[in-house]
Amino acid sequence: MRRLSRADCERLDSTDPLGAFRNRFELPDGIVYLDGNSLGALPAGTRRRLDELVREQWGKDLIRSWNCHDWIGMPRRIGAKIARLIGAGDDEVIATDSTSVNLFKLLAGALHMRPKRKVIVSERGNFPTNLYIVQGLIRLLGQGHELRLVEADELPCALDTGVAVLLLTQVDYRSGRLHDLAAMTRQAHAKGILTLWDLSHSAGAMPIELNAAGADMAVGCGYKYLNGGPGAPAYLFVARRHQGDVQPAIAGWMGHAAPFEFAPDYRPAPGIERHLAGTPPVLGLAALEVGVDLLLEADLHLVREKSRRLGDLCLRLVEQECTAFGFERACPHDSAQRGSQVAFRHPRGYAIIQALIAKGIIGDFRAPDILRFGFAPLYLRYVDVWDAVAALHRVMHNKAWDRPELEHKTTVT
Amino acid sequence: MRRLSRADCERLDSTDPLGAFRNRFELPDGIVYLDGNSLGALPAGTRRRLDELVREQWGKDLIRSWNCHDWIGMPRRIGAKIARLIGAGDDEVIATDSTSVNLFKLLAGALHMRPKRKVIVSERGNFPTNLYIVQGLIRLLGQGHELRLVEADELPCALDTGVAVLLLTQVDYRSGRLHDLAAMTRQAHAKGILTLWDLSHSAGAMPIELNAAGADMAVGCGYKYLNGGPGAPAYLFVARRHQGDVQPAIAGWMGHAAPFEFAPDYRPAPGIERHLAGTPPVLGLAALEVGVDLLLEADLHLVREKSRRLGDLCLRLVEQECTAFGFERACPHDSAQRGSQVAFRHPRGYAIIQALIAKGIIGDFRAPDILRFGFAPLYLRYVDVWDAVAALHRVMHNKAWDRPELEHKTTVT
Repeated sequence: MRRLSRADCERLDSTDPLGAFRNRFELPDGIVYLDGNSLGALPAGTRRRLDELVREQWGKDLIRSWNCHDWIGMPRRIGAKIARLIGAGDDEVIATDSTSVNLFKLLAGALHMRPKRKVIVSERGNFPTNLYIVQGLIRLLGQGHELRLVEADELPCALDTGVAVLLLTQVDYRSGRLHDLAAMTRQAHAKGILTLWDLSHSAGAMPIELNAAGADMAVGCGYKYLNGGPGAPAYLFVARRHQGDVQPAIAGWMGHAAPFEFAPDYRPAPGIERHLAGTPPVLGLAALEVGVDLLLEADLHLVREKSRRLGDLCLRLVEQECTAFGFERACPHDSAQRGSQVAFRHPRGYAIIQALIAKGIIGDFRAPDILRFGFAPLYLRYVDVWDAVAALHRVMHNKAWDRPELEHKTTVT
Repeated sequence: MRRLSRADCERLDSTDPLGAFRNRFELPDGIVYLDGNSLGALPAGTRRRLDELVREQWGKDLIRSWNCHDWIGMPRRIGAKIARLIGAGDDEVIATDSTSVNLFKLLAGALHMRPKRKVIVSERGNFPTNLYIVQGLIRLLGQGHELRLVEADELPCALDTGVAVLLLTQVDYRSGRLHDLAAMTRQAHAKGILTLWDLSHSAGAMPIELNAAGADMAVGCGYKYLNGGPGAPAYLFVARRHQGDVQPAIAGWMGHAAPFEFAPDYRPAPGIERHLAGTPPVLGLAALEVGVDLLLEADLHLVREKSRRLGDLCLRLVEQECTAFGFERACPHDSAQRGSQVAFRHPRGYAIIQALIAKGIIGDFRAPDILRFGFAPLYLRYVDVWDAVAALHRVMHNKAWDRPELEHKTTVT
């Protein structure tokens, strides 16, 4: 293959149909941000929206804002917008709580719909909170449920008629491996199994077609490719055909059919609203809406196309520039089977990531030895990938990682 | 009793030791805000804090902010501050999720600690989400639990050795009636019953001494007297002696003993952190912290003293000015038995509240016929109470409520 140069990358940027979106974000100078799959960047409109909400709505209209600024409608309105990103109907998605809490709610509902089946199947490498939530719910219910963990390629064999729910994350948080959502859903349905998808690492980076795939339930996070801000509210999806059957486990007042009647008995709202629990987190929802609105302006097919090219470029440049340094690819080579991230294994992974961060290249480390680089196509340029790999080369060549390691601190996916 | 005048109220304001706090809030002109028990007003420092957080932290330091700005420590840090408002240790409170979700988590934990007891006792008039959460959990567990609802004066008789948990809201959201937290906790403990208190309508308006009372668990909301903003994160308290025994029902990754090891098996954090689930809602937490910090500057005994006086003044002025109009007091007369609010019944309650709101007097209606006025002592003046009652007099005298009613819309407590 021809050796690529920085000028090649500049040429790619000059014809990028999504290139103009970069100006819609506030990005710091001197930083290449390859961690938008962990915390998305700040949309340029967020500060104004938040300030207006706080100053004009909370500050001046106070409690009246629930009606006059339709705060009360935010979970549904923003849910309907997210629905357009994931191939769902606007009455099938609601923005609320965290991904973990939403997983809990929907998993409890799904198990209730399959009372005779006691197995939840998932992947051994699924994002830990998904597995923890299952473990906690099994313990809570005390009804002999079992979490069956397998490798991705063992999934087809693991799906039998004792299985109630197949719980999968569409894109693996470490390897970036992408599940075929439609095919897995089909295989599950063939055995009467409900599917519960975690879209945290895929929504906003590619078109998703939940309804075309016949998916049953899904959850996802607001702070990655949706650019909703740190700890943004999450969302959940329940297919219309199931909505009447999924009883809310956390039967909070906002999910009541008539919350402001203050009736003593719980009566779930007929539709997706029943999965609300407490009072909507208005500040977080407002920031999330700005991120989602911005994404809705983009063609997700173009987003996906650029995402694949950015990943391919990174893999090719690492091969070209860093062959000598012992990186082992830990993600699919074929971009069709990959989310919007790449990963490499290296025994000094943690120190290398720290050395890169010190040079302004923000990637991510995932234990035990994974270097992870995410590509948010709305604000990342091809030259950014070049600059990141060039910096990686310098770090390795100069052994910049070979210093007393910083304390191994927390980071948040 | 001597007839009071507006000048009397002005004199009270001029010697109010909390008077200076009013300038620490951004309050709209021409409004008397008697709904701080529903949504607290905007602290003057909140906008700057949020803008700094968004611009400097999210925008510039991006993912690194979890460490360098200690976002990851916010639930614990803010929880420790709230602990000082409610008489708890700094390792006993954490800021997270909504009140409804926290109630769910702690109720599930409490039932697990009393496996042979099947009854949860609460009040018939408890805030509905508390009752709904219990109903939802009972249904979810399917273990034959029962919610026993009684009137406040029947509580002592309802507490027997079949009861697992006594779930009470310290201040009733409609009547404002205040429970004796220590006495009720004592009565419950005498029968081996765990207490779970909802402090939403009391915390921040009076000193609370959870540990002095021996309380077991508590939850509370951040957007009322804590002035944390619409839908602010809530908090939960678990007494230190119970912390190892309360297994998290929602076993999310943030409650793991080592969340960033990404281990496949859930292992709860040893302390209060185990009750975290998803990623902390940073924007909401930042606003909440400003409200809590402001409250921590005030002496809660002075806050309580002023709160009682404001309520007494309101009751006395309504008696003085509005005797002819058929209001029936729906709150305790003795301020020692009352939270920071008063309530009246009137058959035209909804229309009267709407007419008051049109005049800039923001009170609250609670079905079926309750007019509710809350007093947030940090920003409310005695003259505000005068002006509110004067407006009420005008509304009633001119029959300003006797118009085609506005559509009965939602409001949020």
